[in-house]
Amino acid sequence: MLDLQPLLCPRSIAVIGASTQPEKVGGVPIRLLGELGYGGRVFPVNPGADTVQGLRAYATVADIGEPVDLAIVAVPAPAAPDVMAQLGQAGTRAAVVFTSGFAEVGGGDALQHALATQAHAHGVQLLGPNCLGAMNLRERMFATFSPIPLSGVPPVGHVGLVSQSGAFGAYAFALAREAGLGLSHWVTTGNEAGLQVADVIEWLANDPQTQVILAYVEGARDGMRLRRALAAARAAGKPVVIAKVGTTAAGASAAQSHTASLAGEDAVYQAVFDEYGVHRAHTLEAFFRLGYTLARGRRPAKWQSATGLAADAVAPVAIVTVSGGVGIMMADSAETLGLPLPHMPDTAAQALRAAIPFASTANPIDVTGQVVAQPQVFVDALANVARCGQYGAVAAFLAGGVNAPRLWPVLQDTVSALEADRHAAPLLISGVMDDDKRAWLEARGCLVFREPAHTMEAVAALAKAAAMEAAADAPVGADNSAPLHPPALPPDATALSEAEAMAWLAAAGVPVVPHGVAQHAEAAVDLAESIGYPVAVKICSRHILHKSDIGGVALNLRDADAVRAAFAQVRRAAAQARDAGGNAVPFEGAIVAGMARGWGEIMVGVRRDPVFGLVALAGIGGTAVEIFRQMAFGLAPLSRQRARAMLTQSRAAALCSGHRGHPAIDLDAVADVLVNVSRAAAAIGDRLDTLEINPFIVGPDGLVAADAVITLR
Amino acid sequence: MLDLQPLLCPRSIAVIGASTQPEKVGGVPIRLLGELGYGGRVFPVNPGADTVQGLRAYATVADIGEPVDLAIVAVPAPAAPDVMAQLGQAGTRAAVVFTSGFAEVGGGDALQHALATQAHAHGVQLLGPNCLGAMNLRERMFATFSPIPLSGVPPVGHVGLVSQSGAFGAYAFALAREAGLGLSHWVTTGNEAGLQVADVIEWLANDPQTQVILAYVEGARDGMRLRRALAAARAAGKPVVIAKVGTTAAGASAAQSHTASLAGEDAVYQAVFDEYGVHRAHTLEAFFRLGYTLARGRRPAKWQSATGLAADAVAPVAIVTVSGGVGIMMADSAETLGLPLPHMPDTAAQALRAAIPFASTANPIDVTGQVVAQPQVFVDALANVARCGQYGAVAAFLAGGVNAPRLWPVLQDTVSALEADRHAAPLLISGVMDDDKRAWLEARGCLVFREPAHTMEAVAALAKAAAMEAAADAPVGADNSAPLHPPALPPDATALSEAEAMAWLAAAGVPVVPHGVAQHAEAAVDLAESIGYPVAVKICSRHILHKSDIGGVALNLRDADAVRAAFAQVRRAAAQARDAGGNAVPFEGAIVAGMARGWGEIMVGVRRDPVFGLVALAGIGGTAVEIFRQMAFGLAPLSRQRARAMLTQSRAAALCSGHRGHPAIDLDAVADVLVNVSRAAAAIGDRLDTLEINPFIVGPDGLVAADAVITLR
Repeated sequence: MLDLQPLLCPRSIAVIGASTQPEKVGGVPIRLLGELGYGGRVFPVNPGADTVQGLRAYATVADIGEPVDLAIVAVPAPAAPDVMAQLGQAGTRAAVVFTSGFAEVGGGDALQHALATQAHAHGVQLLGPNCLGAMNLRERMFATFSPIPLSGVPPVGHVGLVSQSGAFGAYAFALAREAGLGLSHWVTTGNEAGLQVADVIEWLANDPQTQVILAYVEGARDGMRLRRALAAARAAGKPVVIAKVGTTAAGASAAQSHTASLAGEDAVYQAVFDEYGVHRAHTLEAFFRLGYTLARGRRPAKWQSATGLAADAVAPVAIVTVSGGVGIMMADSAETLGLPLPHMPDTAAQALRAAIPFASTANPIDVTGQVVAQPQVFVDALANVARCGQYGAVAAFLAGGVNAPRLWPVLQDTVSALEADRHAAPLLISGVMDDDKRAWLEARGCLVFREPAHTMEAVAALAKAAAMEAAADAPVGADNSAPLHPPALPPDATALSEAEAMAWLAAAGVPVVPHGVAQHAEAAVDLAESIGYPVAVKICSRHILHKSDIGGVALNLRDADAVRAAFAQVRRAAAQARDAGGNAVPFEGAIVAGMARGWGEIMVGVRRDPVFGLVALAGIGGTAVEIFRQMAFGLAPLSRQRARAMLTQSRAAALCSGHRGHPAIDLDAVADVLVNVSRAAAAIGDRLDTLEINPFIVGPDGLVAADAVITLR
Repeated sequence: MLDLQPLLCPRSIAVIGASTQPEKVGGVPIRLLGELGYGGRVFPVNPGADTVQGLRAYATVADIGEPVDLAIVAVPAPAAPDVMAQLGQAGTRAAVVFTSGFAEVGGGDALQHALATQAHAHGVQLLGPNCLGAMNLRERMFATFSPIPLSGVPPVGHVGLVSQSGAFGAYAFALAREAGLGLSHWVTTGNEAGLQVADVIEWLANDPQTQVILAYVEGARDGMRLRRALAAARAAGKPVVIAKVGTTAAGASAAQSHTASLAGEDAVYQAVFDEYGVHRAHTLEAFFRLGYTLARGRRPAKWQSATGLAADAVAPVAIVTVSGGVGIMMADSAETLGLPLPHMPDTAAQALRAAIPFASTANPIDVTGQVVAQPQVFVDALANVARCGQYGAVAAFLAGGVNAPRLWPVLQDTVSALEADRHAAPLLISGVMDDDKRAWLEARGCLVFREPAHTMEAVAALAKAAAMEAAADAPVGADNSAPLHPPALPPDATALSEAEAMAWLAAAGVPVVPHGVAQHAEAAVDLAESIGYPVAVKICSRHILHKSDIGGVALNLRDADAVRAAFAQVRRAAAQARDAGGNAVPFEGAIVAGMARGWGEIMVGVRRDPVFGLVALAGIGGTAVEIFRQMAFGLAPLSRQRARAMLTQSRAAALCSGHRGHPAIDLDAVADVLVNVSRAAAAIGDRLDTLEINPFIVGPDGLVAADAVITLR
C-alpha cells in the first residue's frame, strides 16, 4: 500500500507558481488554505513576488530551506518536469500537479512521461497531472484550484471520495454539500501518471476516518492494483461504491478520448465488482444515494444468500404502507431485487385487524388512510414487525404522514424505542416531510427517501454490505489448497494440440471424452473399437485450431470403414493446411474420440483480459451462445459458489435441473468442473492466452468435454 | 365515450351526509368548496341540521327541489344503495361515493352490486365507492374528503391525473404541488363499480384543458375499455403515462388484496402499452418526471424509428458537457436508450477547438472546465449544435455553472435566441442551480433536471411523443383490408384436428408443410410417396392435442415400410387414447406430412388474454423458449411493423439474418407470416381459445409450419 499521508495529511505545503491573484489557478489554493483554516504551514513559491496573498514568498522551492510534505504545482506544462526534479532535490514527499496539456492532448505523452520519470526518480508521490487536486476535510486541507469550497464545505464525515475526473469530483463535492453527506477525503486523480484511483481506494480502506469509499472510474490502468485495493476494502469491511462509466460502446469511445482510459469490457468489470462486493452506480443520483445509504444506514437485523456469495445477500423486508397502491409498487421493487416478503406474524396481524378491519395484514402491510385517525395503530404495527425477529428491515411509506400533527409525536416515541433496541430491525421511511423532521429521524438511525422504491434498493445494498462485512475475513475467490501437477508446456508453441489440451484438462480433474491419437488408419480403427462406436475423428495439431473449417473433423462414425474413410479425409485436409505463417503443417496424427451423449451443451472458457488477467466465462452452447449471448463471467480461478452463480446467471443451470424430462444432475459437481477448468487455466499461468471448451456435453453423468482449445502466449 | 361533464364540471353539488364538523368525511368537501372558491351551488343534505358550515341544509336530496349535477355521498355503506335510488329519482346526474366497506372487504360484493344497480337503473354516473373523489382545478371543484388541498393546490395546468388508488392519488397531488406541475383534473376511481380509470382517460383525451394524461392502474377490469381509451388519447395526440403496478408475482398478489383487481400478465399489459405508445413508469419519481417532461418539453426537432413504429422512435442528441466524466455517463445512458449520438458538425467543431484546444468535439462535446473562463465558447457550442439541423435535441450538463455570474447572462441570451428560433433543437439542462434560474429556463422552453441521465430519458420520451403525435391519424395495429375466407368451424368442437388447423392456416396465407390424411396404411404410403421422404406420421384428431405424449407421433420416416410401421403404431396409440371426458376416441386417420428442413425453429402463438383479448406471441423455439423465455407479445391481428419488432425483440430475427452461415431470408416476408397467423386467429374470433405453431421451421424458403394446434371455446 502506498502511504498517502504526505499527500492527504501534510504538515506543510508549498505552492509552486503561487499567484498573487486569488482567483488564478495558482492563487486559489493559497486563498483556500488561508481562509478555510488549514493548520499547517504554507509556502508560496513565486520568483517575481516578495509576498503572495499576505504570505512570504520564495523564489524557488530550495529557498524554503526545509523539505515540505506536499507541493502544489501550477506551472506551465513544459516547465513541470524540471519543477518536479527541483521538488525531489528539496526533499518534497508528494506533489499535486494541476497543469493540463499532457497525455490528454495529442503529443502530450512524452511530456507526461518526463514528469512521471522525474517524480519516480526522486521519490515524489505524484497526483495528476491534469487533476483538480485533493482535500482532507478534517484537516481543512484544500489542495485544489476549484473555488467551490469557498461557497461551503460538506460536514466532516466518513465517506472518502475519489474521482478520475476533476469536474465529476467538483460536482460530487457540491452534491455532497447539498445533501449534508459527511466526507473524510476528496481526491481527483486526473491523468494518473503517478497515483491511480486504485491507490487512493487502498489507502482509504486503511484510513480510520473513512468508513465508505465512493469512486468514479473511467478505466483502470492497472487491473491488479484495483483488485488489490478492492480486496483491502473488503478485508477492512468498508463498502465501496463505484460509478464505472463507459459501459456501452458510445460511452467507452467517449471515455477513451477523455482521460485516455481504456474502458475495458464492461462484463469483466462487473465480474470484478461482483467478486469484491462493490456497489455499482450507473447515475450520479444512485452514486450519492448509495453513499448516503451505506454511510448512515444500520445493517439489516438478518440477511441470507441463495448462492452463498456475500455479494448476493438479501434481507427479508416488511413493507408498511398507508397507501395500498404504493405498497404494491414497493412489492414489485422488492421482488425485482430478490428481497423476500414474509407475511406479518399472526399476533401482530390480529392486533392490526382488530383496530383497522380493512387493513391488509399480509406483506405489504397496508394500514390504509386510517393512519390519520389511528396513528398509534400504525406505529404499533411498525414496532411489532421491527421486533418480531423475522425481518431484516422495515420499509415504511408514510406519504405526507410524518408532518401530520397527530402522527409525529407517536412516531417519535416509536423510533426512539426502536433505536434503543439493539435487536430491532432498522427502519427506512419514504414520504414527504419537513427538513427538521427528516434530520430528527436520520439522527436516530432511520434512512429517509422521497421515492418508495429507493427504500427497497437501500435494503438490498445494506444486506449486501452486512454480508460483505461479515465475510471480511474469508478469502476472495477460490482457495488453491491442492496444487495441480499438469504436463509440461511445449516451450515455443502458440497453442496446444487437442490431445495436449485434453491431457491438461484431465490432469486438472475435468472429465473429457475417451480418446487417443492415431498415426495411421488401422490404429484409428483399433482406438475406435476400444472406445466404442460412434466416434469422432479430428486433426490433432498445435497449428490448426479451426479444424472443422478445413474439413478436419468427422463426427458420428459408426463402423470401421467410416473411421478409415474419415482418417483419410482428415489426413488430406492436414496435407493442405497451412499454419499462421503460411507454412505446410506436419501431420501429427488424428484424435479418435468417443461421442458423448447428452441433452444439451455448455460452453466454458477462460481468457486473458488485458486489464484484470484471467477471466472465466460460461453459458449455454449452440444457438443460445450466439443469439442470446447470456454468458456469465468470473475471475479465474473460480470458487465453487461463484461457478454455481455463473451457471445460474447464464441459465446453464436449467440444463442440469430436469430439463425436458431428463434426469437432474448435481449442480455442485457441475460447478466443480468449472472450478477445475479455471484452475487448469490458472496453472498454465502467464503463458495462457485462451482456453475454450465448446461443447461441454450435459448428460446423465454430468459434464464431459468433447473438444478443447488452449492457445498460449 | 362517457360524458363526465356532470362529474368534473358540475354547476351544482349536493353533499349527502354533510357534516357540521369540517374535519369529518362528510364535512371536508363542504369546507373545501367554500374556502377554495368553487363557483357553483352547494347543497348540504343532513336531516339533523338546519345549516351545515353556514349553508342551508336539506333533510333529503328531494328537498333541494331541483336536480343537481353531482352528489357527494358520505353515508354508511348499508345506506348507500337507497341513497343512490333517491339521487336518481331526484334527477342527479353523477355521484361520488366516498364510503368504504364494499367489494374491498370480505362479503361486501353484494352491497356494491346493489349500489351499482341503483346507479345504473337511474342513470346516475357513479365514481367509487371507496374512492377519494375528484377535482377540477380550473373550476376550483374539490369533491374529495382529503384535506390536502387546504394546505395548497398545484397550479392550474394541462396534466390530467387519474388513479385507482386514493392514497396514491393524494400523494401524487402533494408531489405535483411541490413540483409546481400544473393539473387540469384529478380523479380517483376506487372500487370502480361505475367509472373505471379507462373512462376517465377517454374523457381526458377529449378534454381541451388536458394535454397529458397520468394514470395509476392496478388492473384493468375491462381491457377493451382501456384499449379504446388509449386509442382515443393516441388519436388526440395526447401522451399517456401509466404507472401499472403488480408487475411481479409479489406485487400482483398485493394488488389482488388491495382493490380486488386482477393484475393480469405484465407482458400483455406491456404489449398493449407498446401498441398505443403509452409511457410507462415503474416508480413514483419516474411517473412525475414523465409528466413534467411531456407537459413542458418541446418536441425534438427530428426523430426516427428503426421499426417504423412510433412507439420505438428515438431522436439524435448532442451532449454538451463541462465534465468529460459526466458526458460519458450520459453517452452510456443514450446508448442504452438507443439514442444516436452523431458527431458535431465540422464548422462548429473547428470553432470550439480554436477557442478551447483541449475540448472534445465528437459527441459528447466536452467544453471542459474552461467554461468558467470562456462562457461564450460554451453557449456558442450549444447554439451551433441546436441550429445545425442534425440533432433532435441538445442535452447540456452544466454542473453548478448556471449559477456562475459570468455564465448566466450569456446563457440567458442564448436560450432566448434559441427559443425564438422555431427550427432550433430543444435544450435540456442538468446541473444544480437556484430555483429562480430554473424557473427562468423552464419558462423559455428548457427542461431542467438534477440527474444528467434524466435528460437522456426525457429526450427518449419526447421523441416517442412526437412520433405518436405525428401518427395520431394512422390506424392502430393491422389494417384488415383483405377479409379471410377460411373453412367453417365445427360447431361443438373444443379443438381442431391438426389437418383442420393446417387448413385454417393455409387459408390465411400461412405456409404449411405438404401433408394429407390417411385412413389406412397403404394410403399413408401413397401420400408419403407423393410428398417425398422423409415424412412424419401423426394421429389426427380433434380430441388428442398432446400427440407425442401417447406415442402418436413418428418422425423422419425414410421408406414405405417405416410409414406402414408408423401408421400401425399411431393407430394403436389412438385406440388406447381417451378424450378429456375419459371416453375412447374414434380413429379419424393419421396425418402424413413432409419433414421441413431448416436451421432453426420459431414458436408463434395467439392466445386469449382474459383482460385484453387476442394476444400474439413469438420467440425462438426449442430449448430457447423454455430456458430464456424471451418471447415478444403483440395485440392480434398484428401489423407488419409490430410483427417485425416482435421478431427483433425475441431475437428470432437472428435466425433469419445469415445465422451460422445459412442464407439470410427476407424478414418482411417472415413478419408477414406472423401477421397471417394473427389474422387466422382473429378470423376465428370469439371461438378461439389458443392457436400455437411450434415449430415453425426456419429454412431457405422462409417459415413453414410443421405442426399446429387450435383450441376453441
